[in-house]
Amino acid sequence: MTAAARLSIALMHYPVLDKNRDVVASAVTNLDIHDIARSARTFGLSRYYIVTPVQEQQKLVEKIRLHWIEGWGATYNPKRKAALELLQTENSLDDALSDIERRTGKRAKIIVTGAAGRANSVSFSGMLELFEAEPDQPFLLLLGTGWGLTEEIFDRSDYVLEPISGGGDYNHLSVRSAAAIMLDRLFGR
Amino acid sequence: MTAAARLSIALMHYPVLDKNRDVVASAVTNLDIHDIARSARTFGLSRYYIVTPVQEQQKLVEKIRLHWIEGWGATYNPKRKAALELLQTENSLDDALSDIERRTGKRAKIIVTGAAGRANSVSFSGMLELFEAEPDQPFLLLLGTGWGLTEEIFDRSDYVLEPISGGGDYNHLSVRSAAAIMLDRLFGR
Repeated sequence: MTAAARLSIALMHYPVLDKNRDVVASAVTNLDIHDIARSARTFGLSRYYIVTPVQEQQKLVEKIRLHWIEGWGATYNPKRKAALELLQTENSLDDALSDIERRTGKRAKIIVTGAAGRANSVSFSGMLELFEAEPDQPFLLLLGTGWGLTEEIFDRSDYVLEPISGGGDYNHLSVRSAAAIMLDRLFGR
Repeated sequence: MTAAARLSIALMHYPVLDKNRDVVASAVTNLDIHDIARSARTFGLSRYYIVTPVQEQQKLVEKIRLHWIEGWGATYNPKRKAALELLQTENSLDDALSDIERRTGKRAKIIVTGAAGRANSVSFSGMLELFEAEPDQPFLLLLGTGWGLTEEIFDRSDYVLEPISGGGDYNHLSVRSAAAIMLDRLFGR
């Protein structure tokens, strides 16, 4: 299996920080679902998890998914169907990890990302070497919403991926843009 | 001036193709405004034009821009303000070109992008070399919405940038994701 096919991505809506650094559940954004699913499909990823414990939000995601997978959208735009087939809603990070373990027989290693640099961060090329070094290992890349992932999630991670720099001191990409760039840096070309 | 500072980006809402390859004016999407402005600011671009001849759409963009530049949003999120300061609405491609000429004294060279490969397409590294070869030249990168830019626009372009490949045969990234990846490939790291 290619490294990309052993990688899944999870868009975390809980636990994340808000503007005041309080821990909250953020709301699901429609275009996060579509954009990141399309990026995940383009670069050959295994699965795209939307993680939220909020039942109403899960229902919303499922409604959108079914529209494009089985509903009118599936014939209107089959390309969108192919992307959203990767989509799956989970209650929690642990549930996403359990799903990967059920699929692969192995516990995924967790990769987190953050706009701020960390002392122990791994470069994109370093991350690719780690993928190659463990050819049967599944990995799960966590993306934060709101004002970012909590320290609790950083503490649970196996690797912290280096932040994306554009050369200047402004690094406030949307999570959709950051996900696209990360997958391109890892698997593009 | 750096190559990035000589590049502007224009998100074209007219003339673009619809699903049936008819020429239409597409609707502005709120997250296109924000995401591409944030990417443009991250990578140090000069200007981000939203091109639409539709007056109501122009008013909508201006309302969003002013909310974040001068309104409540400016103090709520100064990072968003810094991004949306690059934003400008124009009626047409020609108006965007005139604006660049007014700012720089030079006619911009036009770069177009398309998901489908073209015979005369330029690689990302080739494009960087072209930027360096003309150190005073402004460039304008056009992004299509809907089902893509018209042949008329392709015919007017100076360069066609190679499509983004993820390795497989699926290349249906959102315009927001494609813009982020293109700017990262040109100016990232």
